[in-house]
This record gives sequence, C-alpha cells and structure tokens, in this order.
Amino acid sequence: MKIIDFRIRPPFKDFLGTVMYAGAERRDRITRSIGFEPSPAAQQRSVPLLLSEMDSAGVGLGVVVGRNAGALGIVDNAVVKEFCDSHPGRFIPVASIDPNDRKQAVRDIDEAVAAGFRAINIEPGALSSPMQTDDRRIYPIYAHCEDRDIPVILMTGGNAGPDLSYTSPDRLDRVLADFPTLRIVSAHGNWPWVHQILHVAFRRPNLYLSPDYLLANMPGMDDFLKAADGWLADRFIYASAFPFAPVKAYLDWFRALPISAGNLEKILYGNAARLLGLDRT
Amino acid sequence: MKIIDFRIRPPFKDFLGTVMYAGAERRDRITRSIGFEPSPAAQQRSVPLLLSEMDSAGVGLGVVVGRNAGALGIVDNAVVKEFCDSHPGRFIPVASIDPNDRKQAVRDIDEAVAAGFRAINIEPGALSSPMQTDDRRIYPIYAHCEDRDIPVILMTGGNAGPDLSYTSPDRLDRVLADFPTLRIVSAHGNWPWVHQILHVAFRRPNLYLSPDYLLANMPGMDDFLKAADGWLADRFIYASAFPFAPVKAYLDWFRALPISAGNLEKILYGNAARLLGLDRT
Amino acid sequence: MKIIDFRIRPPFKDFLGTVMYAGAERRDRITRSIGFEPSPAAQQRSVPLLLSEMDSAGVGLGVVVGRNAGALGIVDNAVVKEFCDSHPGRFIPVASIDPNDRKQAVRDIDEAVAAGFRAINIEPGALSSPMQTDDRRIYPIYAHCEDRDIPVILMTGGNAGPDLSYTSPDRLDRVLADFPTLRIVSAHGNWPWVHQILHVAFRRPNLYLSPDYLLANMPGMDDFLKAADGWLADRFIYASAFPFAPVKAYLDWFRALPISAGNLEKILYGNAARLLGLDRT
Repeated sequence: MKIIDFRIRPPFKDFLGTVMYAGAERRDRITRSIGFEPSPAAQQRSVPLLLSEMDSAGVGLGVVVGRNAGALGIVDNAVVKEFCDSHPGRFIPVASIDPNDRKQAVRDIDEAVAAGFRAINIEPGALSSPMQTDDRRIYPIYAHCEDRDIPVILMTGGNAGPDLSYTSPDRLDRVLADFPTLRIVSAHGNWPWVHQILHVAFRRPNLYLSPDYLLANMPGMDDFLKAADGWLADRFIYASAFPFAPVKAYLDWFRALPISAGNLEKILYGNAARLLGLDRT
Repeated sequence: MKIIDFRIRPPFKDFLGTVMYAGAERRDRITRSIGFEPSPAAQQRSVPLLLSEMDSAGVGLGVVVGRNAGALGIVDNAVVKEFCDSHPGRFIPVASIDPNDRKQAVRDIDEAVAAGFRAINIEPGALSSPMQTDDRRIYPIYAHCEDRDIPVILMTGGNAGPDLSYTSPDRLDRVLADFPTLRIVSAHGNWPWVHQILHVAFRRPNLYLSPDYLLANMPGMDDFLKAADGWLADRFIYASAFPFAPVKAYLDWFRALPISAGNLEKILYGNAARLLGLDRT
Repeated sequence: MKIIDFRIRPPFKDFLGTVMYAGAERRDRITRSIGFEPSPAAQQRSVPLLLSEMDSAGVGLGVVVGRNAGALGIVDNAVVKEFCDSHPGRFIPVASIDPNDRKQAVRDIDEAVAAGFRAINIEPGALSSPMQTDDRRIYPIYAHCEDRDIPVILMTGGNAGPDLSYTSPDRLDRVLADFPTLRIVSAHGNWPWVHQILHVAFRRPNLYLSPDYLLANMPGMDDFLKAADGWLADRFIYASAFPFAPVKAYLDWFRALPISAGNLEKILYGNAARLLGLDRT
C-alpha cells in the first residue's frame, strides 16, 4: 500500500531553529502525553534516521511543511525546496507565506507553484501579530489560491494561537463558504472543536481534515474515526506531524484502528495524492 | 405503541419548491451520509407512498412543519393546513412565521392558533437576512407565545444559518432564561453543540430537544441517547425530519437503540402529545 | 488510602441561607438527575450526619469552600473558619472574595492567608453583576495571588453564570497564559466544554480540573476520565460538591471507575495536598 505522511518537518537547517526542535523537552513531553516514545530521529536530529524510519514504516512520501510564523519560528521556502530536491521522489514541498504583506505573499505563492511546491501553508494564529482564520487580510490570498486551484493548509487546531478562539470552527465555516472551490486542509483538524468541525466538514465539501498527532488518545478521537470511516472517508488525511509523533510507531498505531481497508487506502494515500495533484503528473 | 413523527414535510404543493425537494441530489447525499437509503416517497415525491410508509412503520401522527425562510424556501401556512385537513387524524399542523414584521407575525400566530395549528415554527438563521435566536426582533414574538402558552419550534441545529454561530447554544440559553415558561423545541437539537446544549437542557426545564436525522451516526449521538434515557426522558422528542431521513427505516433504527421501554414511549409519543396539547382535546 | 474531598459545603450557619440549602427541592432534583439519592446529611441539614458519612467513606479531609456571590448566596469567611476550627484536622478552609472592590479583596486575601486559609475562591459569573473569568477587574487579584503563590479556585463550569458563555474556556485560556505561575482550579471543570477545557489543560500546566458532581453520568465523562488516568493525572482533583452529591455514595461510585491505583491516589489525595501545601506543614 502506498502511503503519504502529510506533515513532516525534518531536522534540517532552518527547521532546527523552530520551537519544535529548539524546545525538545516540551516536544518530548507532548509526544509522551499522547502515548508514544519520541523518535530517535527527532531526538538525535538525524535526517538519515528519519529516512530509515520512513523506510521501515513503508512511508513512501512525506509532505514537508515549513513555517512562516513569528511565534513558532520561520523556515525559508528555499530550505524546504532544497531538502526535498536532495531526496528525489521522497518528499513533496509546501510553501509557507506571511499574509501581512499581501503583494509579497502573492508573489511568493506564484514563485512557489512555479518551482514545484504543491500547496500553500498559512498559520494565522502563530504570526507575530496573530490573525484569526477569517481575517480580512488573508481574504485576497484565499481568493488568489482559489482562482488558481492551489490547496491551502491552515494550521487551525491545537496550539494554533494565543488562545482557544484561534481554532474556532465558526470562522473557518465562513471562509469555506466564501471560497467554495478553495480546498482547505485543517492541519490538527481544528482540535479540540471535534463535534463542531465535523459539522463544518459535513456541510462544506471543500474542507479536508488532518488531525495528525492530536488524534491519538485525545478527546473526540472516536468521533473523528467514525467520520473518517464513513461520510468523511474522501477528505480525511493521515499525518504524523513529525517530530511530534514518531513516523513509524504512529503509523503502526493508526493502521490498527478500526477503519475499513478501502477507506484506509484513501486516508493514507488517495486523498492526499488527489489533493496535491500527484495523479495529474 | 402510539407514535408521533415530530417533523415531516410531505411532497405537496409549496413543499416541492423548497430546497429539500428541489435539491434532491444534495438531500439524497445527506440521507446516505447518515447511513440510510432515501425513501421512495421522497424520491418519487409521492404522498400516497408517504402515507403507506407511515402505515407500515406504525407512525399514527406526523407533525407537518412548513417554512418561512428565504434561504431555504417558503411554504404557505394555508398549504400546511390544506394538507393536514385532507388527511384527517394523520397530521398536526405547525405554522411558520417571519419575525421581520412583528405585527404581521403576531397576527399570523393568532390566526394560526385559531385555525388549529398547534405550535409556531421560527427558523431565524434561514431568513433572507439571517437572525440569531436571541435577536431582539424575535423577543416580542417569544413574549406573545409565552403569554398564550404556544410552543415554539426553533430550527437551531445543523445548517441553521450561514455559519456555525447560528446554532450556538449560549444565545438559546439566554432566550430560555428570559422566557422561563415558554416551551421551546430545538429542532435538530442544536447539533453539533451536543455537550453544550445538554447542559442548557439540564439547567432550563423549558427546553425540549429533537435532534431528528442529525442524531443518526453523528458525533455526540451517544451523549444524546444517554440523556434521553435518563434525566432528559421527559423532554426528548423523536422526529425523522422526512424527507431527509426515511420515515420507516429511521424509526426501525431508532427503536433498536438502547432506550428503556418506558422512556421510549415518552420519546416516541408522550412528550410530543403533551407539548402539543393532544391530551387536552 | 488518604482521601480529600475538595468541595464540601456543610449545613452550618450562613451555608443554610445559600441556594443549595434554601432550594432543597431543586438541589435534590439535580442529585437524582446524576444518578444518586440525596444524602441524609443534606436533607436533614445535619453536621453530625455529614461527619459520620465522611467517616464511613474514609474521607479524612474536606475542603470547605464558602461563597461571596450575590446570585447564589454569601457565606462569611469567618463562618468557614469557625466551622473548620471546631472540627480540628477534618476540614481545610478556603476564603471567598468579591472582585468588585479590589482593595478590599486584596485585604481579605491577605487576612485569610494569615489566618490559615489555603486558597481563594472566586465565582465571577455568580456575582450580582456577573463577570467573565477574564474580566479586567479580577486581573489585579490574579496578580496578587500569583505573586504570593496562592491557589485560586474558580467556579467556571455548570451554572456558573447567567448563560453558557460564562463557562467558556477561551477566556480561561487567556487568564492562564497571562498568569503562567498562578495555579487555578476549575471547579466543575468548565463543564460542559469538555473537549475544549481538556485542550486548555493540555497546553497550560497551571490548570487543575475538578469536575466534581458534574462528572457523573454527564456528557464528556469518558473524556475526562481518560485524561485523568493519563496525561492529566497530576492535575485532576476529586470532589463531591456536597450537598449536590452525597459524600459516600459518590466516592464509592468514583472508586469503581477504571483508573489505575497510582493515579487514583493522586486524584483522591496527592494533587489536592500538593496544591494546598499540606505537604509543607
């Protein structure tokens, strides 16, 4: 079975300066809180260990998501690209933009798409001056992406901002309605608003959910899984959010969940491949 | 056992122009998403098929709820009445009003009650210019109904408005406190705010919950059921929301749920009969 | 095993004038709703019966929380102290303050701590003029307590205010971030916002949860328990909220829940003892 891990941040250059590597103790505490041992690849900051962990897990492709968020760190898109290019066929780059400067953001998006990036990542609540997902400053950028059919990954779950309101699904509900053909992936799945985001997904066919590491043993897990193995099967996307969860142990855990084989294939590969246009190239 | 289906919209005249019949493909997709096959009565728009489906299910009474909501369609109260009158003893009419014109709404309510309508239906979020449930323009209407002991059905769950905030239970909490003897039925049960609306029901004895088709296989179902078979047994009301769920298959599914016989009788008949005053006539 | 019941309101002097004793019928209805029979100690307003119930339950220590909240009643701190002093070694006093008068509140806190009170209780939504938990008028008081390492108990769950918004966890999330070393106990556990408050607890190590009587058979119970027996084991605190739940029957029920022996010891004793500084005296 082909497998895509939709959110991997390798221990490489700029990534090492972000909170998830610089604050290793906090990160390992989170990993253990959800019931896993930290990956040696995370703890030793080793790209070769990450690659061999992916190999042994059977993860053929990893989506490398950078970061352009003052509060959590910044990873230059060029670094993301360099990493993916140096491991041909193993990683897919996603470009991050800062919505504060609309014209620069649009230029960054166009250059990124031309360079082979497959989606745009925005983390509104983690900006130095945090934004909500329906901030008017992001609207021209949503429009730009919708018009060009570029998928957008929004970090709008978990510690997405200074307080819980930054993961509020009512704002995302509005965005999805205002841009009905823009495909949005909610990274972290708007957790902890599980009931609410499932309603939004039920009514908005352009929303994809990827709760990643916040699925495991967390409140609402069973509701996510029931939807993933039912009406949401075509829009649920697997991810480890490495280094927060280990690539292999997390996948092993996920594959043991009660999800039908047909839906598991969609969740582990098909949905991400279709979203990123891998079937078109 | 006597059974009332608290929300039925027959394939008759004005109903056929509303989104639930005009948008048949969307409707059938919703029906299948919750795990049911669409009713032939819905797909063939056949009143005789609906009647025979009710017969075979043992549904003696159906509550016919119209609609006065720009976004979702309008059903004239006269059409609701005509339908109920043409099938004596099988249907109970509920009148819909538009709170935008307070004086007209009050006249409509008084005429409806005089004509035998048993409750008033308001769908604030679906108006052409959507209102929240605690909109001040509805307050005189709530007061009018409270003073006359007329039950109000509020559509304040599911796709009740342009975004998720229109189902927010904190606003309904305030309404229930401001009109403590007004009996309000939450159609769709304020889903997806399951935990929150159960708290509101726990503290406000004038709230009735009728999650209807959004109960089936949806997030929070088990919490609804646990309350329905416990402290909420006197205020939980069964409904299919036909044509979204099939009358018979939905009832069969519901009757197989783990609810005690005594509480099941209340939920399927007693609570609705008491609310509508059927025991008084 | 040593056991602390973290929220007990004895049938003594001022307590008898508060809603929980004056409104006995409402209280008993709540008790039965969660699946218990009212305690004879509550119904007969008998301190000796309360003491013997604690004895037979094995509850060695009870935390006596007063009240300074117009809507629900007022218990003078001197009455709390008098009660605790008259039963040496059995009760721990918590002082209540009114944030409306900042200077008086600060004086009350300092006097209370000097007199042996172990924590401060604030019930913002139950004040005559209700406040949200992040009301700016409380901020100097939070700062005062943080600077002196005095734990604060906030009633911010259940019927904490005039509507559901008064238990909203996003406001508490902000307070916890603004006072990162202030230890706050959420009495009633911000129920019904179970998923949301668990997220806040996951990200804010200075939050303790004590859902007390609103745990039993209520929506979200299983999510609370899973966290209590996992990553939240060091910050979950047992309480009956007597007279709403009976001291003994509630504890018997709680001890039969699927929680490991090691975590049960923390929840029933260790966490509260550490929070109140019992290990330091």
